[in-house]
Amino acid sequence: MNKERPILAITIGDPAGVGPEVTVKALSDPGIYQIARPVVYADRCVLTAALRACGLETALRRVDRPAKAGGEAGVIDYIDVGVLDKQVSWGVVSVEGGRAGFTYLDRAIAAALAGEVDAVVTAPLNKESLKAAAVGFIDHTAVLVARASLYQPMTLFVADTLRIFFLTRHIPFREIADAITGPEIDAALPHCIRYLGHLGIENPTLAVAALNPHGGERGLFGREEMDVIAPAVERAKRLGYRVAGPVPADSVFHQAREGRYDGVLSLYHDQGHIAAKTLDFHGTVSLTMGLRFLRTSVDHGTAFDIAGKGIVDDRGMVNALQVAGQYALGVKARLHL
Amino acid sequence: MNKERPILAITIGDPAGVGPEVTVKALSDPGIYQIARPVVYADRCVLTAALRACGLETALRRVDRPAKAGGEAGVIDYIDVGVLDKQVSWGVVSVEGGRAGFTYLDRAIAAALAGEVDAVVTAPLNKESLKAAAVGFIDHTAVLVARASLYQPMTLFVADTLRIFFLTRHIPFREIADAITGPEIDAALPHCIRYLGHLGIENPTLAVAALNPHGGERGLFGREEMDVIAPAVERAKRLGYRVAGPVPADSVFHQAREGRYDGVLSLYHDQGHIAAKTLDFHGTVSLTMGLRFLRTSVDHGTAFDIAGKGIVDDRGMVNALQVAGQYALGVKARLHL
Repeated sequence: MNKERPILAITIGDPAGVGPEVTVKALSDPGIYQIARPVVYADRCVLTAALRACGLETALRRVDRPAKAGGEAGVIDYIDVGVLDKQVSWGVVSVEGGRAGFTYLDRAIAAALAGEVDAVVTAPLNKESLKAAAVGFIDHTAVLVARASLYQPMTLFVADTLRIFFLTRHIPFREIADAITGPEIDAALPHCIRYLGHLGIENPTLAVAALNPHGGERGLFGREEMDVIAPAVERAKRLGYRVAGPVPADSVFHQAREGRYDGVLSLYHDQGHIAAKTLDFHGTVSLTMGLRFLRTSVDHGTAFDIAGKGIVDDRGMVNALQVAGQYALGVKARLHL
Repeated sequence: MNKERPILAITIGDPAGVGPEVTVKALSDPGIYQIARPVVYADRCVLTAALRACGLETALRRVDRPAKAGGEAGVIDYIDVGVLDKQVSWGVVSVEGGRAGFTYLDRAIAAALAGEVDAVVTAPLNKESLKAAAVGFIDHTAVLVARASLYQPMTLFVADTLRIFFLTRHIPFREIADAITGPEIDAALPHCIRYLGHLGIENPTLAVAALNPHGGERGLFGREEMDVIAPAVERAKRLGYRVAGPVPADSVFHQAREGRYDGVLSLYHDQGHIAAKTLDFHGTVSLTMGLRFLRTSVDHGTAFDIAGKGIVDDRGMVNALQVAGQYALGVKARLHL
């Protein structure tokens, strides 16, 4: 290897979920070692249980610090976080599982903040277990925002050649239209542009999706484009940002795929999710931008119904690792300019 | 050719738009003649102008009835509708253009109702020209519904392996949630199932998309799934229909692509449009089901800004012709069982 490979911290998530399995499956494939040196934050008993569940015999090697990760295919290097003595029950909400999943994340964040790892890749936590464990955070985002924000963190989906930001996410459909305001868009656009820059895109152009069908057809099917979105785009342009839109949502992702835009700001969860996940369900990787380090994650949950059965599809984790490997050092360098 | 080829009536739409150009471009390609015998409803002067605009020298042959369409590559067979003596100005709204576009459609519908053609493929009309011409209809759908309804007509998008119906379409985003009612879904589901059957799918399974992110997560982000959609799905199941859902919208199209569902009922315009057109923008074909014959159409407008320049992309028309060619005879046979 001539090129320096980033060290990726992987957190296995809730030990009762599919996180440990997608981790050991993905790290039993030689692919990722071409571009990264992975190190897993976990307990040995959980990794052993996951390997057994998947019928894998990949070697486990404990390392005392990330720099010792060898990056060799066939060996899973891990940091022994030391929470669990034995694996929890698969597919069951528990205090122990919640606490363990949180602690793996906590340690990986500390390593990233200390510069010992170059990015963090996370497997899913379980909200109910986190709540049972009373760790004080409801999900990954809450922990990451509290511990590691540099700017206002934003989720960025990468799928195929698409890069998609979200103005709103986990709110009821009925609340979407009211949540799309001039000040919200004004605040989001510079961050989107900055984060595309962090990925190494020079002078990025961002498109803002429209809300109404056909972008409202000049008010015929809704006025948000005229009253809210277009004025915000104009303000951003006057500030020198390369922003286009509002572009009808059934065209904007196609146009971005064709290279007309470097990124798309979608206005609501499903708008961007449908585009990314219809196009490449397993290849859709979620990045958290605006932290002090790059974080990528799988976009599925703990899937308690199939945990421990060895049948979970690990393509989401493989892609999360690939994307982290691709961007980690660049993001790190640009954050410390 | 061993297999019987359907006769496809093609209406060129508004003569001032890109319809004539996409028609002559698509019919100058030998592809479609493998599976269909096309016959264009137009005026010769418009076709001549379109060929000239596109730099094509394909032969035009007037036929007095559709059965005489030869289906030979290199010859565009047309019915002389006899409205215009000379081509209208490209890209300009006009009474003449509106009247001509309407008349081509009117004649093609009459031919389809008489069984002289097996399906109708339409190029775009211009709403402003139709209005100027005072033909009494605002668009294709209005004409087709008035003249040729058999059941309640519905639009069906075909893209890649996806088949997508729409519960609501051209309404403001803010009105979507209220438009999704139990009675509306109850009315739509049997039609969707029937129309999949018309395409030759035996015992089709239909998925209904969810409205809220993650399908609402049991009421956390909206209650329409619990209060409206799931009960309607249950009612349909009790009536013996194979219906699933509500399925989160960022998964349902992927699952349909994988073959789990034969069709998806999307709840609003962009939900289904984003899926289809992000996946295959030019390959997305719009079918109108529930008429007395199959109708397919391009999914773009008259594009007055580029009309007459020969630069319009004809992939939408090529695909509309291919899909009509594929399904026309089967739909016809099943409608007359």
